[in-house]
Amino acid sequence: MDVSRPLHYARSRRPKFISELKEFLRFPSVSSQPQRAEDSRRCATWLARHLEGIGLERVRIIRTRGNPIVYASWQRAGNRPTLLIYGHYDVLPADPAAPWKTPPFAPTIQGANLYGRGATDDKGQLFCHVKAIESYLRTAHALPINVKCLFEGEEEIGSTNLLPFIGRNRRALAADAAVISDTRMLSPHRPAISYAQRGGLRAEIEVRGPRQELHSGAFGGAVLNPIQALCEIIAGLHDERGRITIPGFYDDVRDCSDPERSFMRRSGPSDEKILADAKVDRPWGERGYSLYERTTIRPSLTLNGMVGGHHGPGVKGVIPTHAIAKLSFRLVPNQDPEKIASLFREHLARITPDSVESSVRTLSPVRPAVVDRNHPAVRAARFAYQKGFGALPVFLRSGGSIPVVSSFQEQLGIPTVLMGFGLPDDRMHAPNEKFHLPNFYRGIETSIWYMTAVAKVLRGLTGASPTSNRYEDQTA
Amino acid sequence: MDVSRPLHYARSRRPKFISELKEFLRFPSVSSQPQRAEDSRRCATWLARHLEGIGLERVRIIRTRGNPIVYASWQRAGNRPTLLIYGHYDVLPADPAAPWKTPPFAPTIQGANLYGRGATDDKGQLFCHVKAIESYLRTAHALPINVKCLFEGEEEIGSTNLLPFIGRNRRALAADAAVISDTRMLSPHRPAISYAQRGGLRAEIEVRGPRQELHSGAFGGAVLNPIQALCEIIAGLHDERGRITIPGFYDDVRDCSDPERSFMRRSGPSDEKILADAKVDRPWGERGYSLYERTTIRPSLTLNGMVGGHHGPGVKGVIPTHAIAKLSFRLVPNQDPEKIASLFREHLARITPDSVESSVRTLSPVRPAVVDRNHPAVRAARFAYQKGFGALPVFLRSGGSIPVVSSFQEQLGIPTVLMGFGLPDDRMHAPNEKFHLPNFYRGIETSIWYMTAVAKVLRGLTGASPTSNRYEDQTA
Repeated sequence: MDVSRPLHYARSRRPKFISELKEFLRFPSVSSQPQRAEDSRRCATWLARHLEGIGLERVRIIRTRGNPIVYASWQRAGNRPTLLIYGHYDVLPADPAAPWKTPPFAPTIQGANLYGRGATDDKGQLFCHVKAIESYLRTAHALPINVKCLFEGEEEIGSTNLLPFIGRNRRALAADAAVISDTRMLSPHRPAISYAQRGGLRAEIEVRGPRQELHSGAFGGAVLNPIQALCEIIAGLHDERGRITIPGFYDDVRDCSDPERSFMRRSGPSDEKILADAKVDRPWGERGYSLYERTTIRPSLTLNGMVGGHHGPGVKGVIPTHAIAKLSFRLVPNQDPEKIASLFREHLARITPDSVESSVRTLSPVRPAVVDRNHPAVRAARFAYQKGFGALPVFLRSGGSIPVVSSFQEQLGIPTVLMGFGLPDDRMHAPNEKFHLPNFYRGIETSIWYMTAVAKVLRGLTGASPTSNRYEDQTA
Repeated sequence: MDVSRPLHYARSRRPKFISELKEFLRFPSVSSQPQRAEDSRRCATWLARHLEGIGLERVRIIRTRGNPIVYASWQRAGNRPTLLIYGHYDVLPADPAAPWKTPPFAPTIQGANLYGRGATDDKGQLFCHVKAIESYLRTAHALPINVKCLFEGEEEIGSTNLLPFIGRNRRALAADAAVISDTRMLSPHRPAISYAQRGGLRAEIEVRGPRQELHSGAFGGAVLNPIQALCEIIAGLHDERGRITIPGFYDDVRDCSDPERSFMRRSGPSDEKILADAKVDRPWGERGYSLYERTTIRPSLTLNGMVGGHHGPGVKGVIPTHAIAKLSFRLVPNQDPEKIASLFREHLARITPDSVESSVRTLSPVRPAVVDRNHPAVRAARFAYQKGFGALPVFLRSGGSIPVVSSFQEQLGIPTVLMGFGLPDDRMHAPNEKFHLPNFYRGIETSIWYMTAVAKVLRGLTGASPTSNRYEDQTA
């Protein structure tokens, strides 16, 4: 299928695309805030109508116990391959509010960037594929492949409702490969394909001390403080070498092969680059590994939040009743989040001081996933990036976790191509999140090229597909 | 002067007194909350008018940079002794709100208790002396002694403005002794005089990590988390024996003499009693000392609050930018809060991990204070308690800090009698604070007796006063 007309359409409709993306960004579809449930529903409805508007078929808003799933497809390409396009319309909370220079839910263009919560993660990236589909359907009135779109509203809270939905709808979701744009490139001219991602597990620890707040004068020195106990617990979760101290935690970690580590050294970011991206002066973590390795092939444990006692303005001389810490594990093959959860639970029970009580709640288990860099669907992505960005992508491992990737692998038996259009300074998850507009345009064109490429390299729901050598002009 | 008419007046006016105390308790005069400044001013005005109404003279509302000081006096007793009565009309915040069974600023009687923030600490106790004065002035039209009332609105935040005010007004505040009712008895029939209190120092530690929130997937394992760093710092402030690890911290601690420790063992609460009061099952703290000793003659360090990162509902996979802990030191003779502040500052700089930055703000330095148990003003209090409560008081050390006590000692050269009417279960500083109404009534009568007793044992601004043997019928 000729791509020149879709590409021309995409190039001439940029102002319209931006204005539609802004509409999409205006919904405060924060999945972790129950009070935003109605906003999420409105966002899902808007998205479904939009997909219908561009010519997608079988558009469905599927109700769940949480935010709805939006599904749409175009399956008129006969026995050509089927691509499952996943994205998420939910966003993180915009707090802390103070650092935002523009309102998080009033998307604003400044220079070459569009600012707003969700601009990159993931509404903007999701929209690249939507606009690519529109560009085909409005010009050729057809797509070069069959497409199934699966857009959810709970990625940031662990895809709790989507994962069982996938298990229940294996036939309906059958495809040859999945593509997700929810990751980052190295720089505006250095695209990247994530071929591995860490798994994850969230945990919330609560330490309970006195049944009622106590006067710190009257009882200070005689009663163990739950904040102090929680601090001791947390401080003890890492040893001085930066390793996690939970017994058995590393038992199932599969050491990376030397060739893989060599490949990572050649292709991955340097320590300096990672520190510069983080705007942090000094590294930290497990000895014996580069920062790239520490954030990809090594597991980690991060404190996301903690609260206890009086923390508002002013002072209050109390021994508080309890303290809470929220943390997240990032896991690597072959760690099993359920097994880690029970190891953690046992360890916490062991190390909690006698004078307080502790409990732990674990949620959002995600298994780590690795995709074969030589799979034809991945090779097609290399070609598409070269066309869209004028550069071949590097292959990177990702430190984060997109929960569906391992589900697609295990439930649908298909690889996922993580075709990121975000930039390291896009501030995903942070205040002043933005999307680099040139990446929006190039992302759309890359998606246009990708669909055509997939049509050539995959045979269509037949299992193994022959690899076209056409895209093997360079090695990664 | 005959006490029978004031006593009779006090007994017959209980409903009126309670209704006035309720009015007093309705002001949310929370000194640590800037938004309550106007409520505090209204409370000070109400108190001043009330003092004028009962016949006190020279009533003044003295403006400060914070909440006003309320002053009133009655100095028509010629060369009789002068008693300085101190109290505070400010209260702690009512948070956490959930555990309150009645609204904190809508005082409510249930059974023999009056519930509300400030009921015991310190509006109710302060009011005992006000109602005693009223009982004299309304019946005898005179007091047996000269009286100066000094009521402040910033005790809970360290008396920042009152302490320099005392220094500047030594002549105007000259007295023979001070009395403060802001402490606790052992039980409804076991009154107590606090003859020592710990000093104090508040500190707020801030640990700063990345300049912006980072995605915990992308950077988890490579960047030190400020919450984790703060937890490590806090965990390291105590050793496994429960001692504070700041170098030099114990250098100036004056060990208590064996006779004093014996006296404390005989007169003070048992470990079991202290745990029962705290409703806590297991003790904690510095080895080699009883819980009573740990909370009075040994210094302590208590975490009052901590906050960092995302701590609301739901999850947010971030490495936060900073974390804050609020803590309070309780100090004993001869520790100097200013010296402790600088030792702490140096220690924190030493132990902060390289990968983060820390800063500390110290405030509310209070020096420890000890009052001679044999001072005539203290003996007069024993007599008054015996009359008011039908029992001689025990002498106790207090773990808390009333900032003015050391100022009265150092600036005015007078002892302070800490004549508490609170009960261990009154929940000072906690939700559901209450005042035991029988203690309100007996507190008023004790104050009536006290003024008469002071007239007999102190000579009036002449320095040393002869001790009347009359009250030495029993040893403590």
